[in-house]
Amino acid sequence: MVLPKDIPSSAENYMDSQTLTKLPISSILIIIAMQTEALPLVEKFQLSEDQKSVFPKEVPWVRYQGIYRNLQINLIWPGKDLALGVDSVGTISASLVTYASIQALHPDLIINAGTAGGFKAKGASIGDVFLVSECAFHDRRIPIPFTVLQVFDLYGVGLKQAWKTPNLHKELDLKVGKLSTGDSLDMSAQDESSIVANDATVKDMEGAAVAYVADIFKVPAIFLKAVTDIVDGEKPTAEEFLQNLATVSAALDQAVTKVIDFISGKCIHEL
Amino acid sequence: MVLPKDIPSSAENYMDSQTLTKLPISSILIIIAMQTEALPLVEKFQLSEDQKSVFPKEVPWVRYQGIYRNLQINLIWPGKDLALGVDSVGTISASLVTYASIQALHPDLIINAGTAGGFKAKGASIGDVFLVSECAFHDRRIPIPFTVLQVFDLYGVGLKQAWKTPNLHKELDLKVGKLSTGDSLDMSAQDESSIVANDATVKDMEGAAVAYVADIFKVPAIFLKAVTDIVDGEKPTAEEFLQNLATVSAALDQAVTKVIDFISGKCIHEL
Repeated sequence: MVLPKDIPSSAENYMDSQTLTKLPISSILIIIAMQTEALPLVEKFQLSEDQKSVFPKEVPWVRYQGIYRNLQINLIWPGKDLALGVDSVGTISASLVTYASIQALHPDLIINAGTAGGFKAKGASIGDVFLVSECAFHDRRIPIPFTVLQVFDLYGVGLKQAWKTPNLHKELDLKVGKLSTGDSLDMSAQDESSIVANDATVKDMEGAAVAYVADIFKVPAIFLKAVTDIVDGEKPTAEEFLQNLATVSAALDQAVTKVIDFISGKCIHEL
Repeated sequence: MVLPKDIPSSAENYMDSQTLTKLPISSILIIIAMQTEALPLVEKFQLSEDQKSVFPKEVPWVRYQGIYRNLQINLIWPGKDLALGVDSVGTISASLVTYASIQALHPDLIINAGTAGGFKAKGASIGDVFLVSECAFHDRRIPIPFTVLQVFDLYGVGLKQAWKTPNLHKELDLKVGKLSTGDSLDMSAQDESSIVANDATVKDMEGAAVAYVADIFKVPAIFLKAVTDIVDGEKPTAEEFLQNLATVSAALDQAVTKVIDFISGKCIHEL
């Protein structure tokens, strides 16, 4: 029987793992769901698209790779849906590319970067880039009673800590907040209750899925989420999202660059 | 630009693929989310647990395998969550094990079997086993306007046809219905609208995720869903689910056995 307070934080698990070495970080896996968010970084880090894919030939996933400041950067974008031609957003594609990329590329650190909705009641404004402290799901309600302590409920919530980065936080002066993940762009009343229960400041469609897979393999993961729309504001989410996507992606890319610059030459426990 | 009517059915794609051979089916991948559902089949087919896993050592996924009626059977259960010890239900685990199993085992056919909620308004009763005609999601709402024909909406719904099995249907006299998948055991008002839009008779937590991955790799997939609880009935879902889980799992296992017996010696286009 596992009590909630006994759930080990990811950070504690990592303490025992081989990832916590004193060698500088050498390989970074960046996972970005949308092409609009990914391409400026591909250009910034002068990455090139893989000609011989490390993934099965059937998947639309795209790997951009290169060396930047002594770091092997692999930026993975899940690509366009094979049937519909839109970005493969959401938790299923995110978990699949995280799994396959860890298997193929053995990264020292994962960075999941993307745009997100923000809650002004929790201090978010358009263009803010948040460093995420923890991730959870808000659309996986499994209220099975009679199972002691409702452990299925907790499984659904899927709370995972991000890798702790106190020095990065201090240096870059990023806002810190909790992330809640779900497969819908909008927010139902049930989603809202769960997001409040998750104490989330930002809401996305991938983070907790990346965190779930990273946690299985004990790969440290951090999450940078840039606010394109205010969920508890006046404007409709989709409209505000589209209006701000390009400019906020630029802010996100700036933040990712600063983070990578900070990481260069450091060990995982110096972040 | 892809119009909804232009979305190719999986069956059409398969017509061109190498899976459509005249050789009898030789390898079947059965994906089952819960141990209670899986173990009777493990016994029935006299499968043995893999001692040397085909999966990475970090994952909790369990493979049972053996030969039954000249068929190589691989039954994959995603195992117990590493942190919480409950069955790894839901779309993320289902998509990951489907992906990894296709890569490792190259099945000719996938059978996703499991319990489900049923809608009495659509003709479902407790203990019915449905052969699924098509799968879609009901909790991935991506209403982005201004994208022509709202293609993100369709991506979220993720409609996939099951492999067409007219002979199997005729022979076994199974009920046929559409399946709607989501990561919650309960049903919100938004879920209900989407389930109605999906015209679903049964509701589960894995099917459309298995279908998504199977479709990427053009592996024919069929879905058997046994009704443990009536969603539009009087009793609370979780209570009814737990009450009927064991007996309905037995009905499901009987149906899976009949299906496997029918498949033995046949080609994929004879189903």
